[in-house]
Amino acid sequence: MTTQQDIPGRTVYIVSDGTGITAEALARSVLSQFNLTFSRIHIPFVDTLDKVRQAKDQIQAEREKTGQLPIVFSTLVIPELVTELRKADALHLDVIQTFVEPLRAELGISPKEEIGLSHQNMESLEYKKRIEAINFTLEHDDGQSNRNLEDADVILVGVSRSGKTPTSLYLAMQYGLKVANYPLIPEDFERGHMPKALQPYKNKLFGLTIQPERLAEVRNERRPNSRYAALDNCRYEISEAEGMMNLENIRYLSSTSKSIEEIATAILSNLRSY
Amino acid sequence: MTTQQDIPGRTVYIVSDGTGITAEALARSVLSQFNLTFSRIHIPFVDTLDKVRQAKDQIQAEREKTGQLPIVFSTLVIPELVTELRKADALHLDVIQTFVEPLRAELGISPKEEIGLSHQNMESLEYKKRIEAINFTLEHDDGQSNRNLEDADVILVGVSRSGKTPTSLYLAMQYGLKVANYPLIPEDFERGHMPKALQPYKNKLFGLTIQPERLAEVRNERRPNSRYAALDNCRYEISEAEGMMNLENIRYLSSTSKSIEEIATAILSNLRSY
Repeated sequence: MTTQQDIPGRTVYIVSDGTGITAEALARSVLSQFNLTFSRIHIPFVDTLDKVRQAKDQIQAEREKTGQLPIVFSTLVIPELVTELRKADALHLDVIQTFVEPLRAELGISPKEEIGLSHQNMESLEYKKRIEAINFTLEHDDGQSNRNLEDADVILVGVSRSGKTPTSLYLAMQYGLKVANYPLIPEDFERGHMPKALQPYKNKLFGLTIQPERLAEVRNERRPNSRYAALDNCRYEISEAEGMMNLENIRYLSSTSKSIEEIATAILSNLRSY
Repeated sequence: MTTQQDIPGRTVYIVSDGTGITAEALARSVLSQFNLTFSRIHIPFVDTLDKVRQAKDQIQAEREKTGQLPIVFSTLVIPELVTELRKADALHLDVIQTFVEPLRAELGISPKEEIGLSHQNMESLEYKKRIEAINFTLEHDDGQSNRNLEDADVILVGVSRSGKTPTSLYLAMQYGLKVANYPLIPEDFERGHMPKALQPYKNKLFGLTIQPERLAEVRNERRPNSRYAALDNCRYEISEAEGMMNLENIRYLSSTSKSIEEIATAILSNLRSY
């Protein structure tokens, strides 16, 4: 039986035959529902009986040392490895098998039980597309280049420090999109329109904006007490940038209090429904 | 009843109250076990009864149109939303609730049932760390800067096109690590040792290598028929780079036939066990 007292020490193992990134993300989501701190131990690349035995022994030792059931999130595909891991006395949360079984029943066909099918290897087209997207995005970060803009999937615009660079890289890395990003700067506001180079690509433009208070905070971390970071200047730049985006009919969203993942997903949904 | 014939058209819905990135990664892993093609429809940010009803209606319409059960991977946290979604006649694979229940029983406490607890918002320390890591990594890409190398968590080295840049960005984005990367170039091989600026940081160095045939292929896509891409030159550079890493006792791994995620996770495991 568990009591409130012994809970903080609960250890969570994440055991995977691959990188364990999916299992880790899922474990984080699920555990965040409980108001406790967990210590997480990550055991990736468990793809042989030998390695799964080591993992099992480690979990069993923890069980005996603490007297509590360790929590095990696992993404193992090969049934023999699953069976071996389950010999450890623990709360087993088996992320793949749990969903493979009902799918097998519904689809009426057998699963392959092969490791690593979800990985893109370097030979795959999808992988090459992703690497090309990362290279394109790096070359087109912060208005560095106007070359091949016709190849961009998205062009982000916004004032300096509104979140363009991390969002661009995330879109490239996660979704294989070629993303260019351009800062909107005081010269643009004086001219009163978007940079000329972007005019032919209006349908690819997407704006990021941010609350002035938050922008001043972020900029102050970079250049303390500068004109650049002053709240009135941030207010001016944002009001000009939003005005320009409204005038030119450019979709935009606020990055304030959003994570990179949320901004990226919102941009994607928006582009798809365009 | 399903038959082989009607299987290719099976539609998979990914319904999430957040970005759905975890659900999508899990769906991909699970579905890759079945030798079928699925069409995926992504419905993120389903966080109100109104939105969940729309999703439910869309799934139900698919059910009626095709006569087959749609497959629904969902990560909804609020029980009312789950109940509403389940009214659609589908194969429901409920990614969060499936694991929350056994955890609730084992831990003896109730889940919070609040949306988005797994997200890092812009105020969180972890989020700031990640943005700083991305900025550091961009500034230290491809040997651009020797400044603040003492702050780097990892310094990747390897010949041009061995996979340093995408791996560095992935480590920064996914794990919040500050990563610098340096190309090993013919001048280094002539001098016969690592770049001077890196000497004080040997314990942070990690090498990437790659099969010469694969490197020639990758370089040929960039600069066709150049000396840079010639197989004998690739062989020379790699043999020199590996020799230098062996001599200076620098850990390295081959990026050939590995995904970015696999390279990054392998580097992490290696650093942790150092």
